[in-house]
Amino acid sequence: MNDINAVVFDAYGTLFDVHSVIEKCNSLFHGKGQQISQIWRTKQLEYTWLMSLMGRYENFFSITRKGLVFALKELKLDFDDELCNEILNEYYILKPFSEVPAALETIKDKKLAILSNGNPEMLNTVVKNSKLNELIPNIISVDDLKIFKPFLGVYQLATAGLSVPREQTLFVSSNSWDAVGAKVFGFNVCWINRANQQFDELDVKPDIVVKDLKQLVESIKS
Amino acid sequence: MNDINAVVFDAYGTLFDVHSVIEKCNSLFHGKGQQISQIWRTKQLEYTWLMSLMGRYENFFSITRKGLVFALKELKLDFDDELCNEILNEYYILKPFSEVPAALETIKDKKLAILSNGNPEMLNTVVKNSKLNELIPNIISVDDLKIFKPFLGVYQLATAGLSVPREQTLFVSSNSWDAVGAKVFGFNVCWINRANQQFDELDVKPDIVVKDLKQLVESIKS
Repeated sequence: MNDINAVVFDAYGTLFDVHSVIEKCNSLFHGKGQQISQIWRTKQLEYTWLMSLMGRYENFFSITRKGLVFALKELKLDFDDELCNEILNEYYILKPFSEVPAALETIKDKKLAILSNGNPEMLNTVVKNSKLNELIPNIISVDDLKIFKPFLGVYQLATAGLSVPREQTLFVSSNSWDAVGAKVFGFNVCWINRANQQFDELDVKPDIVVKDLKQLVESIKS
Repeated sequence: MNDINAVVFDAYGTLFDVHSVIEKCNSLFHGKGQQISQIWRTKQLEYTWLMSLMGRYENFFSITRKGLVFALKELKLDFDDELCNEILNEYYILKPFSEVPAALETIKDKKLAILSNGNPEMLNTVVKNSKLNELIPNIISVDDLKIFKPFLGVYQLATAGLSVPREQTLFVSSNSWDAVGAKVFGFNVCWINRANQQFDELDVKPDIVVKDLKQLVESIKS
């Protein structure tokens, strides 16, 4: 890892725990938090892929709302726009995984960036609210291209934005399909496998697999 | 529905019950059939979207194998290539839903077609094995374009292949996201909702919702 000059992180699911919305959902719909969060996340991702394939684009906040609405309807829960907004607001204050700040601190000699499906407004807000803005200076959004990951041009945004060639870049994601896209693009890739999941069967494999960011930075340092 | 001159059907999940593989899976992995089938189908679809977005193409049989391999690994089941082939073979003999043949018989005055993600070899075989070839003369595959649904150009294949304008075509699918793609393209759309599911939140709605093909042909006839 001596030749790595830039480390580019996925945001949702990688730095930020998207399931930290469960608590809020539980407070509004007793005992349903886990189910809401699961369906919501699944649909949020599906909708990014489906919209992209249809050549349509709406920003990630709008897609996230659609996923939430689907989840609440599927579970036959009563809601209105105001309640939706209250839940969606959680996306501005998602919690980073606990080891993230200290781990980032130890690799600040590299160029650090986020490359995310999130639109700039939601990304800048969550990064600022979690104080990660002090550690990651570059926030790159697919919104510039108006198409979502894993469209390969999206990964090029990081290469262009940081002026670091892909072979000197390490891309870090907890999302198996995102790690695949980055690998196909030509990045070095680290898959963070927090929950002992199965990597997708899409022909490529990550260069490194770790259980969290702490383990990743230790392997970069050594 | 007087102006409908062509009826175009999705194949997998719509005419053919993809979950009719459960029995075979249960015979090989006792009690795991349902779980295998569920994960398999989810990954099969995800992989069509992800590969398409990355600008890569492998035919649907190959994608279906990848989905199966993921499911077996995820469930930590022992398997080898031969066992995989044995299970995959089920895709050649998928059962049509029970009402399908009689329902198709009643609308044979229209141009009938299948428009499917399946590659020609797998489609032709399953259609022949189920004797639906006597009822549906036109089999159209996305393989001609080497990209999967809901890429909008795929739906154009049916319009071009049948020489029937989109506004005179009824597209029929059990897959909510496929119904969305067809509607965005400009077809009249029927969503077959066999299991009382929730339609996707992707801005468009189907023109007709029915619980099976029998109900659909009754609504066309009336």
